[in-house]
Amino acid sequence: MNKLLIVGTVAFDAIETPFGKTDKILGGAATYIGLSASFFKTQSAIVSVVGDDFPQEYLDLLTDRGIDISAIEIVPGGKTFFWSGRYHNDLNSRDTLDTQLNTLADFQPKVPENFKDADVVMLGNLHPLVQISVLDQLTATPKLVVLDTMNFWMDCALPELTEVIKRVDVITVNDEEARQLTGEYSLVKAAAKIHAMGPEYVVIKKGEHGALLFHDKKVFYAPALPLEEVFDPTGAGDTFAGGFSGYLAQSENISFANMKNAIIYGSNLASFCVEKFGTERMVGLGKAEMLDRLQQFKSLTQFDISLAE
Amino acid sequence: MNKLLIVGTVAFDAIETPFGKTDKILGGAATYIGLSASFFKTQSAIVSVVGDDFPQEYLDLLTDRGIDISAIEIVPGGKTFFWSGRYHNDLNSRDTLDTQLNTLADFQPKVPENFKDADVVMLGNLHPLVQISVLDQLTATPKLVVLDTMNFWMDCALPELTEVIKRVDVITVNDEEARQLTGEYSLVKAAAKIHAMGPEYVVIKKGEHGALLFHDKKVFYAPALPLEEVFDPTGAGDTFAGGFSGYLAQSENISFANMKNAIIYGSNLASFCVEKFGTERMVGLGKAEMLDRLQQFKSLTQFDISLAE
Repeated sequence: MNKLLIVGTVAFDAIETPFGKTDKILGGAATYIGLSASFFKTQSAIVSVVGDDFPQEYLDLLTDRGIDISAIEIVPGGKTFFWSGRYHNDLNSRDTLDTQLNTLADFQPKVPENFKDADVVMLGNLHPLVQISVLDQLTATPKLVVLDTMNFWMDCALPELTEVIKRVDVITVNDEEARQLTGEYSLVKAAAKIHAMGPEYVVIKKGEHGALLFHDKKVFYAPALPLEEVFDPTGAGDTFAGGFSGYLAQSENISFANMKNAIIYGSNLASFCVEKFGTERMVGLGKAEMLDRLQQFKSLTQFDISLAE
Repeated sequence: MNKLLIVGTVAFDAIETPFGKTDKILGGAATYIGLSASFFKTQSAIVSVVGDDFPQEYLDLLTDRGIDISAIEIVPGGKTFFWSGRYHNDLNSRDTLDTQLNTLADFQPKVPENFKDADVVMLGNLHPLVQISVLDQLTATPKLVVLDTMNFWMDCALPELTEVIKRVDVITVNDEEARQLTGEYSLVKAAAKIHAMGPEYVVIKKGEHGALLFHDKKVFYAPALPLEEVFDPTGAGDTFAGGFSGYLAQSENISFANMKNAIIYGSNLASFCVEKFGTERMVGLGKAEMLDRLQQFKSLTQFDISLAE
C-alpha cells in the first residue's frame, strides 16, 4: 500500500458562524487532511505536535481511521495550538479572534523512519521552515509533493515560502492568495507565474465557486456542489487537500487526467465537511455516502454537445 | 426555420475600463442578444426604439447578421438611449456615470405581425411593463419565453417585475440579483424561491465563476472559461442570453439535457464578448472559431471517474 505522509497542525478550534458557536473542539490542518485521506487505501502518518492537554479520545479518533500518529509529539506540560475565529454572514470571510501557538512555536518535526520513503507527501499549512525540514528528512524522492499554504506566510515568511514552493510538484492556494503571491489579478496569469516558481501543477481554490487546476496550457475547472446551507467552512480547504492527496496516493497515477479526478474527490469531500461544525461531518461520514455524491458531481458538470451541429 | 423574437435596448454606450475608454459606441441588450443569437439557424427580429441620431451603419450591421430590424422604431428628432459606466479594477463591479433614457422613456413596443407566433421569445433587460406588453401582443403561446432582468427593476418596479416573472419559462439573473429578489443568501434556496414565483428554469449568472441552471431538484454548473484578460465585461450577460435562446430556438428541444448545452453555448459566446470593447469581438467573430472553443469547454469540465473504485 502506498504511503502518504502528512504534516500540519493538530489543534483546538473555537468557531463562531451565523448558525452558532462552539467551545474548544478538534481542529487543525493535519486533522482534516488525515480524516479526508482516510477514505482512500493508503498507509498514512501525521507529523505534528500537541500539548498534554490534548484529549486521548481525539488521538484515538485518528488511530481508528488507520492513521499512524506515532509522529504526533506530545509535549509534557505543553499546551496545544489554539485558533478561534468568527465567520461573517456570507461565510466567505472571517476574523481571527485568537491565535495561541503554544507548543507549535518550537515545533521540530520528526518524520518517522518508515515514512522517510513516503510515496506522497502532503505539506499542510504551517511555517515554511517546518515544511522544508520535513522534505530534508526524506531519504527517497516522493512520487508527489503537495503544498498547501496561506497568505499569512506570504506576509511574514516569503523567502522561506519561496524556497518550499521551488521544491513541490503541486501547490494549492485560494484565489486571493494566488493574486497576492504573484501580483496578477487574472488567475490564468497568476497560475503561470506560480508555475514558473516551481510547481508543475497549480490548484487555485475558489470556495463556493469551485477549484481550478492548471498544468502547462491545460486547465480543469471543478465546481463546488451548490449547497442549501454552508454551516461552517472551517477545514474545507484542508479536507480538499486530503481528498486530493489521498486519492492520488491510492491510485498511483499522477497524470493530468487522473489529477482531475483527484480534484473532484477533494471537492466532494469538502462539500461534506462544511455541512456541520468542525470535524463532525467528516467523522460521521461513510464511504458509500461519499461515493454516492460523486454521481451528483457528474450530473452537475457533464454535458453532451455534438460538435457537428 | 424557428422564429426568435428579441426585445431589448438598442443603444449607445460609453465605457471606461482599466484598459481604456470609448466614445459613444454601439451597445444595448438587444444588440448583444441579436449578435449572439445570429450564430444559430433561426429567423430573428428585434423590437426596440432608437432616435434618428442612430447611425444607419449600426442598423446595417444587424441586418447583415440576418436580423429583422423592421420593429426597431426610429423616432424622428428623438435621441437614442445612452448609458455610460466605469468598471472598477477587478472588472466585477462598475459605477454608472450617466443614463439618458431619451426615446426609451415613452417606448411602446410593437411586435411585427409575422413574429406574433414566435417560437422563442427573449425578453432582454427593460422595464417589466414593456416586457409584459410584448407578451400581450403574441397570438400563439411560444415554446419558450426567457426573461433577463436586473436589480434596478427590483428596486423600482417590483410588482410589475413579479407579474412578468410569473409568465416566463426561464429567468436569467446574476447571483446578487437572485439574492435581492428572494432574501436568500444560498443560491440553491434563492433558485427554489424564484422557481415558486413561476419560471420552471432558473439560470443564475456568476460572471467569471460561471452559471448555474436549476430545474426542480436538478442543477447544472457551467464554468466560465478562465481568461488571461477580461477586457470589457459590457454585454457579457446579454451575449450569454442570446446564445442560450438562439441555440434553443435552433434546436427545438427544451429538455433539461439540451438546456445544459444552451448554457454552454451562451457561456462560450460570452467568453468572446469580453475580449474586446463593446460589440467589437462579437462583430468580428466567425462561426468556426466559436465552435472551436466549445472543445475547450469540454476539456475544462469533463472528467472520467469510474464509480467502482
